[in-house]
Amino acid sequence: MNGASGASGDAAMGEMEFVERLSRRARAVAGKALTLGIGDDCAIIRPGRSSEDLLLTTDLVIESVHFLPDVHQPEAVGYRTLARGLSDIAAMGGEPRCCLVSLALPRWADGRWVGRFFSGLLALARQVKTPLAGGDVAHADRFSCDIVVCGAVPRGRALRRDGARPGDAVYVSGVLGGSALGLEARAGPAWRRHLRPEPRLALGRYLRTRSGVTAAMDLSDGLSMDLHRLCRASRVAARIEAPLPGFPGAALDHILHGGEDYELLFTTRAGARIPPQHQGVLLTRIGTIVERQRPWVTYLGMPLAPLGYDHLRAR
Amino acid sequence: MNGASGASGDAAMGEMEFVERLSRRARAVAGKALTLGIGDDCAIIRPGRSSEDLLLTTDLVIESVHFLPDVHQPEAVGYRTLARGLSDIAAMGGEPRCCLVSLALPRWADGRWVGRFFSGLLALARQVKTPLAGGDVAHADRFSCDIVVCGAVPRGRALRRDGARPGDAVYVSGVLGGSALGLEARAGPAWRRHLRPEPRLALGRYLRTRSGVTAAMDLSDGLSMDLHRLCRASRVAARIEAPLPGFPGAALDHILHGGEDYELLFTTRAGARIPPQHQGVLLTRIGTIVERQRPWVTYLGMPLAPLGYDHLRAR
Repeated sequence: MNGASGASGDAAMGEMEFVERLSRRARAVAGKALTLGIGDDCAIIRPGRSSEDLLLTTDLVIESVHFLPDVHQPEAVGYRTLARGLSDIAAMGGEPRCCLVSLALPRWADGRWVGRFFSGLLALARQVKTPLAGGDVAHADRFSCDIVVCGAVPRGRALRRDGARPGDAVYVSGVLGGSALGLEARAGPAWRRHLRPEPRLALGRYLRTRSGVTAAMDLSDGLSMDLHRLCRASRVAARIEAPLPGFPGAALDHILHGGEDYELLFTTRAGARIPPQHQGVLLTRIGTIVERQRPWVTYLGMPLAPLGYDHLRAR
Repeated sequence: MNGASGASGDAAMGEMEFVERLSRRARAVAGKALTLGIGDDCAIIRPGRSSEDLLLTTDLVIESVHFLPDVHQPEAVGYRTLARGLSDIAAMGGEPRCCLVSLALPRWADGRWVGRFFSGLLALARQVKTPLAGGDVAHADRFSCDIVVCGAVPRGRALRRDGARPGDAVYVSGVLGGSALGLEARAGPAWRRHLRPEPRLALGRYLRTRSGVTAAMDLSDGLSMDLHRLCRASRVAARIEAPLPGFPGAALDHILHGGEDYELLFTTRAGARIPPQHQGVLLTRIGTIVERQRPWVTYLGMPLAPLGYDHLRAR
């Protein structure tokens, strides 16, 4: 996600409060080209007299947090790093234009490892026609990497997470929980899903052009967490009422809270017609948006806590 | 700098080889909007039908590499982080439009520390009208931060580091070595210079509009290293022939090799008239560009090795 960074106050606060506080502080600095700032999947920048808005997103990938050096092959780390950034572009209906990669390299990440990391990253870059345009490099005790992806949408047309309204239907793409299941199993279809998530770029562009789509975001930190974020951004609440589309073998916990599925979560006006799939990717209605209330999200009538991955609580 | 990232092969290779190798690999991925990729201070992106090109730069700031937690106050770390990114925009003659910050936070960086970090960063952001538009946050063993700055220049007008030609004059802005001296002294004017470098945004824009300026880059890793980079990008060599403008008290080593001065290094056609200062910042001719040859850079006739900060050799 793009909606994050640091803020003052309680060390134990979670990521959502952190982002909301910083967002308030950041509003004090005005700028002429910024259309949308902290709190969505990407920032939106409007260049002078352009027919396009540019999308900008940045995501960290850290050793032992986002991958395990003795478990993940370097090609998979590279592939997943770019996928993470592309998914934010997909969530706003954008077309990726270029990426930049900043690397902090510990001693164990030798030239061979880094070469294989870039083989994985560039394989995906080629597939989605997104050139590597630059970056930075430094040494460090632990591997960390920041991926920046720049994308574009027709002016004023980006999908945002703050447009959901009471009465809207809530949808997810694909099947959920595969990545979390795969990380446990480390073999089989779920593991392959974990290693090679598919950013939903074509679906994001389709939803952007489809009338009646009111909000969208990507599922990077788990449905429970990300649906909370969408509700808070839109100042609404949500009820999950229908059976959830789960990856074969995934437990309820994987489906509700598992991160890194990189599917899309979106809302549509009550009457909008959404087909059951798009280019082979399932589109499933899972619930309804209601007036703002506590709890923010319920699942079959029970409060659903945002137990997905919180990058600050995990410390 | 923007010109970096990872590449395959020898673990002991330096940053310049690393960047050049990766740049060759990255060229295999084409994209429609990318005007300039790996190897300059910023990538250049051309949005559809825009009157502007966008500049994009990303830089790492890592605990114990770029700052010392027991020496640098959090406000100074935040200020210097943004200054680092702004300097890349300045080097290409751009106007900053927004920034994004990704933070990896260890336990010691509590809410109070992070709040003070953002106080320093936002103070500079306000000064240069560059809103904070987003970022990412994660936990980690060590503090690291990636700063992304997006800027703009009129279409096709960005200053680049690959335009120097034999016969051009070589200039630097300001005085050199203050930041390196300050880090040793930890008191006095040089320490203050170290803590609050001034990105040369106004000077960069002035040079962009001035006829006869052929190349520019910022001095982030020391004159010897950065002049080598400019020469390699432009496929020329350089002779430093004149006395160098040093920060009061700075030794030759600080002046030639000290990093983080964030002054501008630029070249001009032989006949171009450059005033002795711009808005109080000295502009000093220090040498001449010559035909490509080894050594790439000489200082008063002697070969000058690129002993500035190499982010890979430092491991």
